[in-house]
Amino acid sequence: MSKGKIAIIMGSQSDLRVMSEAAKVLEELEVNFELTIVSAHRTPERMMEFAQSARKNGFHAIIAGAGGAAHLPGMVAAYTTLPVIGVPVKSSNSIDGWDSVLSILQMPGGVPVATVALDGAKNAGILAAQIISNFDDKAAKKLESYKKQMKDKVLKSAEEVEANGWKSAKVGF
Amino acid sequence: MSKGKIAIIMGSQSDLRVMSEAAKVLEELEVNFELTIVSAHRTPERMMEFAQSARKNGFHAIIAGAGGAAHLPGMVAAYTTLPVIGVPVKSSNSIDGWDSVLSILQMPGGVPVATVALDGAKNAGILAAQIISNFDDKAAKKLESYKKQMKDKVLKSAEEVEANGWKSAKVGF
Amino acid sequence: MSKGKIAIIMGSQSDLRVMSEAAKVLEELEVNFELTIVSAHRTPERMMEFAQSARKNGFHAIIAGAGGAAHLPGMVAAYTTLPVIGVPVKSSNSIDGWDSVLSILQMPGGVPVATVALDGAKNAGILAAQIISNFDDKAAKKLESYKKQMKDKVLKSAEEVEANGWKSAKVGF
Amino acid sequence: MSKGKIAIIMGSQSDLRVMSEAAKVLEELEVNFELTIVSAHRTPERMMEFAQSARKNGFHAIIAGAGGAAHLPGMVAAYTTLPVIGVPVKSSNSIDGWDSVLSILQMPGGVPVATVALDGAKNAGILAAQIISNFDDKAAKKLESYKKQMKDKVLKSAEEVEANGWKSAKVGF
Amino acid sequence: MSKGKIAIIMGSQSDLRVMSEAAKVLEELEVNFELTIVSAHRTPERMMEFAQSARKNGFHAIIAGAGGAAHLPGMVAAYTTLPVIGVPVKSSNSIDGWDSVLSILQMPGGVPVATVALDGAKNAGILAAQIISNFDDKAAKKLESYKKQMKDKVLKSAEEVEANGWKSAKVGF
Amino acid sequence: MSKGKIAIIMGSQSDLRVMSEAAKVLEELEVNFELTIVSAHRTPERMMEFAQSARKNGFHAIIAGAGGAAHLPGMVAAYTTLPVIGVPVKSSNSIDGWDSVLSILQMPGGVPVATVALDGAKNAGILAAQIISNFDDKAAKKLESYKKQMKDKVLKSAEEVEANGWKSAKVGF
Amino acid sequence: MSKGKIAIIMGSQSDLRVMSEAAKVLEELEVNFELTIVSAHRTPERMMEFAQSARKNGFHAIIAGAGGAAHLPGMVAAYTTLPVIGVPVKSSNSIDGWDSVLSILQMPGGVPVATVALDGAKNAGILAAQIISNFDDKAAKKLESYKKQMKDKVLKSAEEVEANGWKSAKVGF
Amino acid sequence: MSKGKIAIIMGSQSDLRVMSEAAKVLEELEVNFELTIVSAHRTPERMMEFAQSARKNGFHAIIAGAGGAAHLPGMVAAYTTLPVIGVPVKSSNSIDGWDSVLSILQMPGGVPVATVALDGAKNAGILAAQIISNFDDKAAKKLESYKKQMKDKVLKSAEEVEANGWKSAKVGF
Repeated sequence: MSKGKIAIIMGSQSDLRVMSEAAKVLEELEVNFELTIVSAHRTPERMMEFAQSARKNGFHAIIAGAGGAAHLPGMVAAYTTLPVIGVPVKSSNSIDGWDSVLSILQMPGGVPVATVALDGAKNAGILAAQIISNFDDKAAKKLESYKKQMKDKVLKSAEEVEANGWKSAKVGF
Repeated sequence: MSKGKIAIIMGSQSDLRVMSEAAKVLEELEVNFELTIVSAHRTPERMMEFAQSARKNGFHAIIAGAGGAAHLPGMVAAYTTLPVIGVPVKSSNSIDGWDSVLSILQMPGGVPVATVALDGAKNAGILAAQIISNFDDKAAKKLESYKKQMKDKVLKSAEEVEANGWKSAKVGF
Repeated sequence: MSKGKIAIIMGSQSDLRVMSEAAKVLEELEVNFELTIVSAHRTPERMMEFAQSARKNGFHAIIAGAGGAAHLPGMVAAYTTLPVIGVPVKSSNSIDGWDSVLSILQMPGGVPVATVALDGAKNAGILAAQIISNFDDKAAKKLESYKKQMKDKVLKSAEEVEANGWKSAKVGF
Repeated sequence: MSKGKIAIIMGSQSDLRVMSEAAKVLEELEVNFELTIVSAHRTPERMMEFAQSARKNGFHAIIAGAGGAAHLPGMVAAYTTLPVIGVPVKSSNSIDGWDSVLSILQMPGGVPVATVALDGAKNAGILAAQIISNFDDKAAKKLESYKKQMKDKVLKSAEEVEANGWKSAKVGF
Repeated sequence: MSKGKIAIIMGSQSDLRVMSEAAKVLEELEVNFELTIVSAHRTPERMMEFAQSARKNGFHAIIAGAGGAAHLPGMVAAYTTLPVIGVPVKSSNSIDGWDSVLSILQMPGGVPVATVALDGAKNAGILAAQIISNFDDKAAKKLESYKKQMKDKVLKSAEEVEANGWKSAKVGF
Repeated sequence: MSKGKIAIIMGSQSDLRVMSEAAKVLEELEVNFELTIVSAHRTPERMMEFAQSARKNGFHAIIAGAGGAAHLPGMVAAYTTLPVIGVPVKSSNSIDGWDSVLSILQMPGGVPVATVALDGAKNAGILAAQIISNFDDKAAKKLESYKKQMKDKVLKSAEEVEANGWKSAKVGF
Repeated sequence: MSKGKIAIIMGSQSDLRVMSEAAKVLEELEVNFELTIVSAHRTPERMMEFAQSARKNGFHAIIAGAGGAAHLPGMVAAYTTLPVIGVPVKSSNSIDGWDSVLSILQMPGGVPVATVALDGAKNAGILAAQIISNFDDKAAKKLESYKKQMKDKVLKSAEEVEANGWKSAKVGF
Repeated sequence: MSKGKIAIIMGSQSDLRVMSEAAKVLEELEVNFELTIVSAHRTPERMMEFAQSARKNGFHAIIAGAGGAAHLPGMVAAYTTLPVIGVPVKSSNSIDGWDSVLSILQMPGGVPVATVALDGAKNAGILAAQIISNFDDKAAKKLESYKKQMKDKVLKSAEEVEANGWKSAKVGF
């Protein structure tokens, strides 16, 4: 499909609840990706090997999701010069997500992680597609139409509310 | 120089204290960039025009720094499908930087901002170079040697501390 | 009805759950209002047009509700000199509401947003009516009787508790 | 001067360090105001009398600044139906300003306070002028030119940085 | 019953869910009390009259519970020199209780409020009894036996766990 | 002097910087007190003996100040049925004072600590005097005149600001 | 079984919900332990006796769990020179667990508590086994195989996801 | 000296400002240690080798200090079954230390880090000595006398304050 290829990794299968949003949006944007489980704390050697070979394995960006003391995105960034996108996951043992956010965001100078919102796996996928759009026009076009769809959806709901009044509007959650 | 080109923008000249680190590291990595002042709240039309034309003006990523209720990175992302890198700036009127961090990080689904650490402009520059390294081998090589330099510097300080003892070590700040 | 007119806008239909409280209280206070959907990140041009023409379209204040990295109130304030009232919405992807609160409250000097409590849409409506009460005596009178009703309700519940004892009191939630 | 009149009150003379910014900007916008000291906790009767008579004394909005457990803005709002603008002051005994912000912002339903940023007295003044601009065209015009000046200042600094390069730019603090 | 008398007040009937714990423990400790509804923001005059006359009405301490921007305890303390015990209530519109805690705890110098834990109405009752125990030996004795009962309950559960093993223990919530 | 007697204790001599304010205000209010150093973590037996004998040694309340993981107030409360007033001290190793505040405030049901503001030792002294005022009329009168002095000081500064204008006012810090 | 012996204590039976995880993992690692209830605030003398005699009673580490203003781990550490492992418990009256975490973590210099994650009783058990592994080779071996099992479990879930695709994967919670 | 041996590692030489306290107290307690620089993000292979060989190199515990997104302690724990003691360092780029604390404390089940207070390197050293005291009686005795010295110092300062009055006391900082 696309010229670029993205890796989606996460610390455990339970993170799929959140991280599958990245896979879904990449499918929608027709961007190639591979998805697997890599744990920084339980399979550190696997993580090292994955990260060290990611560029030569044809990946253009790595999406890494983790919760709590979330070291996966930052440690992957330690082993590669590819862009690493970190997704803080609000896991069950998290302190309201603050631990995941700060463990991923506050990387020291020299080793960046592109952090997205708490549980923001969808945006991680879009950001990966944006990175690829620099050298893949099809991805750029897909992103433009994705943006247009979002706009149209808002305009449609605005029309509905204005036409029928706010009391009759469906209130989503 | 590089095949890619980066935009560095910020809300006011006072942000240069932090944002100049992005410029410095891009120079070091020999990546082209342009730097200017764009304010979301004081020059919203200028921001719109800048963001809407960024891709066709040859930029491959936009680094946007802002403090307090920091809307610049997110609003630029609203107008473009280029990767936008947000730098939360700990400005004088900030509540310990939490406002900047959350205003930039917590973007809604569909409109990502690649957020780096508070005052992390250097990492924003490196992340931009990583994005470019996908289609510019020179940038990829520069990043590899940058990574090696960081490693060597740590190894050298380790040697010093081990050779001369921790009491004689220079304690940096 | 009233001499003044208020705009109520929000980023998506799902915000109606919270923002309808502003509409309800304005109806109760007999203040004119219009309500629609405007998204800062998905329909930025619509937001600009709305905000730039709000004063000449006869509005006297704008109530804007948003969650997460909530840029709608602040960006509307960038485009108008009308009073803008911001309602931080505790959306599902929010970090306990802190992101919404700080993104709306911590505006830079020159571009104020009148922020109310988290999910405080009712108070946004009352504040809008107070603004109108400066040139519309009917609104001023409505606000006085609203205040009296609140007082009477407290006095009545105090009487009940004192008469029947705290054990028999209905405990609301 | 203006048709409207604003009250600026604060809990102690030490708050003038912050609150004088409201006075300055109202002078600049040529809006009438009176400024005095009113303490919720030390002069509660004076506060009550001030607030109860504010509307009939010709005020159109009240700016109230306070730090720590900041009760002044909310208690003034309890006694009047005028718009009350609250300024959280980061006083010396504050926990990083969080106490002031939350004590002012999180008012219960029925009694709004229009809260601005921590130490945001300048924005409180501008918001007061915006309220008055609804019935005073001169204030509306002043606000328009104030907005234009802010824009021009940003454009000028952008020009400078673009012309002379970011290294030569003055870095303000 | 006791020589001392305690007032228990709260902003609305919904606070009884929490505040009834203060009443229960005072009954258990056989300390006189009166309980009613007083709202700082909805019935400020009633609050003033209550607080100004509390000492001459025979009260020895006032327990005041409130949520959100909780001004009731601090404003009552402004009007009296009796000890005021503040109970931060985690109300539905609260930001995780932080607003209630900080609005009550962070009183300025000169006007103390004795703050207990979030939703800690039981401890407010015990603290009130401790204050009375200084001049009422019966209250002092009741407090001693209350303390002994707490100890005995822990010892009994320790015995059970040690005798039957932790797996068979009832796990309370 | 007074009929009541207060104990002021703290974990180390360095806490005197904050805790001396309690001593000062008790002297001003002519209330007897004794002051010493008791550490929960370094002299736990001394703490136990002090607390167990405090009532029979004639004390009517105990003011305990501590920083960081501040266990002194709560552990003293575990050993006595006297009112214990806790002062969270913002010590050098504190995380912005949050640790001290929460370690003192959030006591479990059955063992209250009357917590005052961060570094709020002055209010701890006044609260102790209020407790004594229940059985010592002189203390009650002293508190009334202290309250009046605070009020007069505010009124005087209000007069000055109103007479001479806010620009000429001394801005205290 | 093992050469070492661990004590597991907690403030009330309700903490067993969390603390039983420490017991379970110690059983799995075949490390001896004893478990009982000790309350810092309700049975302070029992706590003192327990802690003072723990080393001579053959314990090699003490795991102490507590919630809210959690003083048990720190006070046990005040009475012993054994390693004390603190487990912050997110009890029902906690402010999102912050109080437990900070009350246990922020111990003053001289009296350490080895703190684990919020509700992290399993890790407390493993840490205790690690301490024992220094002089008990069987424990060291058990820990090695425990680590290997964790790794194998991750590798197996990685295989599954890679073989069957992420859409068919079981998403654990 | 001692039978046990401790490793002290940190991410950069600048952490010596904090981490030297661990070295000092281990010298005072006559416990062997080695100190060097190991960076998780800049020398990940060195970190892996260090951690994997630490037990067979004769270490009994590892003290690891790091700031910001502090991954060193947790990643070392991923590679070893020795006890790992984590010291959150409040580095210059930290958000008030919260990032360091949460990145170290909130480790997932299976991989514990014994976390001490922010900048609490001294307590890390003492905790390491406590671990060794389980098989080294000399360390146990040293710890007992260290504890006694702390107690004596408090008793001495208590005597001084009681003898000379609090006004003459030296107030340490």
